[in-house]
Amino acid sequence: MLKVVYADSEAVSAADRGLAYGDGLFETIRMCGYQAVLRRHHLDRLVADAGRLGIDADYAELDNQLTLAARRLLPGDASGSWILKMILTRGSGGRGYRPPESSAPTLIVSASQLPAIPGPEGVVARFASFPLTVNPRLAGIKTLNRLEQVMASREFTGEEWELIMADPSGLPVEGTRTNLMVHTDDEWITPAADAVAVAGVMRQYAIECLQAAGETIVERSLPARIDLLPGLRGLYLLNSVFGIVSVRLLDSVSLPVEGTLATICDPLKTLE
Amino acid sequence: MLKVVYADSEAVSAADRGLAYGDGLFETIRMCGYQAVLRRHHLDRLVADAGRLGIDADYAELDNQLTLAARRLLPGDASGSWILKMILTRGSGGRGYRPPESSAPTLIVSASQLPAIPGPEGVVARFASFPLTVNPRLAGIKTLNRLEQVMASREFTGEEWELIMADPSGLPVEGTRTNLMVHTDDEWITPAADAVAVAGVMRQYAIECLQAAGETIVERSLPARIDLLPGLRGLYLLNSVFGIVSVRLLDSVSLPVEGTLATICDPLKTLE
Repeated sequence: MLKVVYADSEAVSAADRGLAYGDGLFETIRMCGYQAVLRRHHLDRLVADAGRLGIDADYAELDNQLTLAARRLLPGDASGSWILKMILTRGSGGRGYRPPESSAPTLIVSASQLPAIPGPEGVVARFASFPLTVNPRLAGIKTLNRLEQVMASREFTGEEWELIMADPSGLPVEGTRTNLMVHTDDEWITPAADAVAVAGVMRQYAIECLQAAGETIVERSLPARIDLLPGLRGLYLLNSVFGIVSVRLLDSVSLPVEGTLATICDPLKTLE
Repeated sequence: MLKVVYADSEAVSAADRGLAYGDGLFETIRMCGYQAVLRRHHLDRLVADAGRLGIDADYAELDNQLTLAARRLLPGDASGSWILKMILTRGSGGRGYRPPESSAPTLIVSASQLPAIPGPEGVVARFASFPLTVNPRLAGIKTLNRLEQVMASREFTGEEWELIMADPSGLPVEGTRTNLMVHTDDEWITPAADAVAVAGVMRQYAIECLQAAGETIVERSLPARIDLLPGLRGLYLLNSVFGIVSVRLLDSVSLPVEGTLATICDPLKTLE
């Protein structure tokens, strides 16, 4: 049974394990009025990844809470776009790091404004100097352990829309808040789900769209110099709130910008 | 200026970055009445590591808050031992992962009972299967990103006092809540501060005591089979609450147990 906390009117127990250890995970969902973009993808991931952490999560219950939260938190303009964030923690209890035998998870719900969405002309990106490490057993899970992304984000100078994080060996893994997708003459390439810190739902949806369109999509690591990839047609940043964002300048090097992925894959079509 | 939250009577804003991203750090302090064991070590580490994260922290202010918290939270028996936990987060604000330009940190203070302290006969330890990854830029910092330790702790069967975590290549790094110290005929060995997830204050104090005693202490990685180290005299688990704990059985292999480190180093002598 979930304990539900509405962030606009309630606070969170200081004993919650989400605060103490980052013992939980979250979804940031783009809303159009009462409808959620990539609703099933978000809920599927939340339930599956909670299971990997041993946190009880039931699809129907979370789906219902999403509906209730949308009704309660919907901003004044009922047709407008906004952001709904759901944090699911293991709740309180246990002995130190050791979780309790059975947890009573906490669901924390909050609303925020839709940020500005970049246009098709593309954005400026740069590599962060702060490295990204991925624990193989936590790979892909959008846990509350996001201090690496916070620290990388301190490097934003105002000129970049995104900072791309590399592993300690220098290979690009993902942006602070986006997954990477590369298009070449031959194929689409994205780092594998078991090699990224966060496997975003937009990444998953883009893979499904590309597969449905008969495109060749491979999951493998990207080279340090993406701009030197033979036949490079474009580098995309994927995020379920921002959608598909092209990179036009990476570390001051111009990249080709094409609109292909947006024509294959439109997350706004998933509204429900 | 700190916002101070007493966990026994107040809750934490759901917008706090400590909850959202684990954007903070903590100290767990053994208290004897109003006095703190390793007080200066705890406060030194908290201030230094907050600085590494870009979180404002002032030694005198935190020292004062520790004094105030001890007065307010001291359990009934004013001479008894107890635990005081201080969580310091970056506070609220910022844009997503990106922190605000200047933060107003939150200090969350709570008290708990002293757990049972193992005797000199030593404890049973085992390797956890859950691996530990260390971001080189966060190494040693007791941040709120502790999901790896939580996940490893789910492997406790009740037979072990501690689970030792290894890096993905299999080399032992630290226990879920302790640092490792090995004594051989030739030297004392502990993994380097820049290679551990948490560089405990007890580890630091033990190094200082060994140096003051003229012992040879080296910081380097330990082999996967600690029991096969030539001239092994003992494996110690270090934690500022539990002090110095000998391991007598590691993965069902008996290890020699000596009392040497406890005679060189007694954290209770640091009471102030």
